[in-house]
Amino acid sequence: MKNIAYHKVMENMKKNPSLVHCITNYVTVNDVANIILASGASPIMADDKMEVEDITSICTSLVINIGTLNERTIESMILAGKKANELGHPVVFDPVGAGASIFRTRTAQKLIQEIRFSVIRGNISEIKTLCYGSGTTMGVDADEADAVSEDNMKSIIAMTQELSAATGAVIAITGAIDLVVDCKNAYAVYNGNADMARITGTGCMLDGVIGGFAGSNQENILDAVVAAIAAMGLCGEYAKERCYGTSSMKMYLIDAMSNLTAEQLERGKKVESKC
Amino acid sequence: MKNIAYHKVMENMKKNPSLVHCITNYVTVNDVANIILASGASPIMADDKMEVEDITSICTSLVINIGTLNERTIESMILAGKKANELGHPVVFDPVGAGASIFRTRTAQKLIQEIRFSVIRGNISEIKTLCYGSGTTMGVDADEADAVSEDNMKSIIAMTQELSAATGAVIAITGAIDLVVDCKNAYAVYNGNADMARITGTGCMLDGVIGGFAGSNQENILDAVVAAIAAMGLCGEYAKERCYGTSSMKMYLIDAMSNLTAEQLERGKKVESKC
Amino acid sequence: MKNIAYHKVMENMKKNPSLVHCITNYVTVNDVANIILASGASPIMADDKMEVEDITSICTSLVINIGTLNERTIESMILAGKKANELGHPVVFDPVGAGASIFRTRTAQKLIQEIRFSVIRGNISEIKTLCYGSGTTMGVDADEADAVSEDNMKSIIAMTQELSAATGAVIAITGAIDLVVDCKNAYAVYNGNADMARITGTGCMLDGVIGGFAGSNQENILDAVVAAIAAMGLCGEYAKERCYGTSSMKMYLIDAMSNLTAEQLERGKKVESKC
Repeated sequence: MKNIAYHKVMENMKKNPSLVHCITNYVTVNDVANIILASGASPIMADDKMEVEDITSICTSLVINIGTLNERTIESMILAGKKANELGHPVVFDPVGAGASIFRTRTAQKLIQEIRFSVIRGNISEIKTLCYGSGTTMGVDADEADAVSEDNMKSIIAMTQELSAATGAVIAITGAIDLVVDCKNAYAVYNGNADMARITGTGCMLDGVIGGFAGSNQENILDAVVAAIAAMGLCGEYAKERCYGTSSMKMYLIDAMSNLTAEQLERGKKVESKC
Repeated sequence: MKNIAYHKVMENMKKNPSLVHCITNYVTVNDVANIILASGASPIMADDKMEVEDITSICTSLVINIGTLNERTIESMILAGKKANELGHPVVFDPVGAGASIFRTRTAQKLIQEIRFSVIRGNISEIKTLCYGSGTTMGVDADEADAVSEDNMKSIIAMTQELSAATGAVIAITGAIDLVVDCKNAYAVYNGNADMARITGTGCMLDGVIGGFAGSNQENILDAVVAAIAAMGLCGEYAKERCYGTSSMKMYLIDAMSNLTAEQLERGKKVESKC
Repeated sequence: MKNIAYHKVMENMKKNPSLVHCITNYVTVNDVANIILASGASPIMADDKMEVEDITSICTSLVINIGTLNERTIESMILAGKKANELGHPVVFDPVGAGASIFRTRTAQKLIQEIRFSVIRGNISEIKTLCYGSGTTMGVDADEADAVSEDNMKSIIAMTQELSAATGAVIAITGAIDLVVDCKNAYAVYNGNADMARITGTGCMLDGVIGGFAGSNQENILDAVVAAIAAMGLCGEYAKERCYGTSSMKMYLIDAMSNLTAEQLERGKKVESKC
């Protein structure tokens, strides 16, 4: 078991702020950009094949999210991903809706074949689709029957470690309980609350935050991912206390990220090592 | 005259929550997704022709909004619409800016020919364009001279009922006074306030809310539409009381939707039957 | 030196409200639309080549922003720009990220060749790229070493006046200190604060506000630009006082714009003539 160096991760965010190239969906892109800025990193959104290699080259990390996948940008994702691999930049992948359409499932598989990802983050249904080749569930939200619990956690970790071994990526499954897994380690993150699922794009925002944390902590991606997920959940907790409803909750969540300190994260994190 | 079953509509939202497939514009899409979630339904945004039929197949309803129309997505709208028709899903259409460009007017007409819509919602200028084949007014906002008033309401209802008869859709004209019309019924909704027009996308958000309400109330689309419009207006009233300006008003409107109860709607609705 | 007629500019916003056609990026488009509405003007977002000329024809001004440039919309930008030129509408250009990729730099140059812009607004790195043909800095944010200061202001004004002479446009460089320059005049605007850089799209929003101000003040574009930039900065100051973090700051900034009066602007502006 490995201790997560929260302070070090946050310190590196300040010392070496990331510039995160995002090829993401048009639904939540504004919140993604704003939460990246709130976390202390900077975003660049660019998805045309004429420039994605140039843009990725001036960045520290790349986030690929297939939330509103279209044929035009798949080529851009592959070009950017290959360039980021060449340059050794961390690449985060969010297979949004893998399993919900053949197009998404196949594109997610293709991207995993073509690009070496540092982090793959999805809900349980999406990660299962990547593990088993086809989705057992339908939709872009996770099937509740599949949700991670203390009972099934062990077998989910085993499944996820195989995906980690096959891809070389740190795998993050987010939901009521979040799991972060690599070949040797597994952590459960208990921060956050159920109302975060009533905001669109908490997952996409988290992708961006992970992109920033990973870009500033390239020597220690696992710590960066655990810290980013705990930070996001913690900000959701602060937001929940202050909000009147789901929209002000989103606002206060980003506000909380813009004010988050290493001390708050160290004190507020709820993380347990599971192997 | 038919009584609107507000409680029943809201109860069905909880019992059979909708999954709403949206092919909508990139201006207001985030607010559309968030207000759908706030209302208790779930959104999926997907617009590539490679997947729209798959996505619509796992949903309960479809919303088509041409707010930022482009050539790429027209084919997707038709594919998704035909599939939704085949499956018997309610399909909501918002002919944003019909009359403002030949491209929008013709596309709106083409979509009405190819797809059987359950609900068509627009401002008075857009609906007039659909009724008369070409716009008498210009722009994406309604011409104020055309606004629905107690004086012209009767003739507007007559015009709208013809469109309803021709298309089979419930027609909703929104503005200072909202009208909901089918072949036999007409309701005026007096909820809301003028400041809602200073927020972009209140119409688009309403499309999404209608999509969710209709998906959970497929046996009674008319009631679903009246209830959704009254709910939206009522949330605008709550928001107006609390806000400092137009942006916080948008936030509190979505907040209000996330807290809205059947009791609040029953008590707060301002709806009159007009035929 | 010329006095800026703030009251007159604001009065014209009310007397002749603008309809602003925006071809902009999908990251910040919602905030752009909302701040245009907040300022008293109206936005239309339309980017398909099938309709951009129609749409521009019913508007008072055009804003072109290459924030998420793609091949599809370049042709639309040129078609709309030429039509707006033909009709004598003010056209605002934001060369987002010029210098960050060859694609953006070349497209920005091409647009300047094909379209007569009334206003060009960018950060210092983007404007330098336009002045010197290729970027000396990289990224979509300005290089801090290049930032406008009291020390280098004179030489930056000289450089910018050459660009103004070559293009016929009022040039605005925004940053900690904003500069507005035409062939004969130069103003420094000291409103705003550093936290505005932690919100994505303050520049894009400003483009939209300038589009509205310019559309209502076509006889006096220079005054419109100075007033719009001072107004934006002033709203940032109000927002800073009230906010808890970066997301509520964005909200209060738009709120402040929706409440801004000519008197507040007159009293709060911090503008100095520099030549």
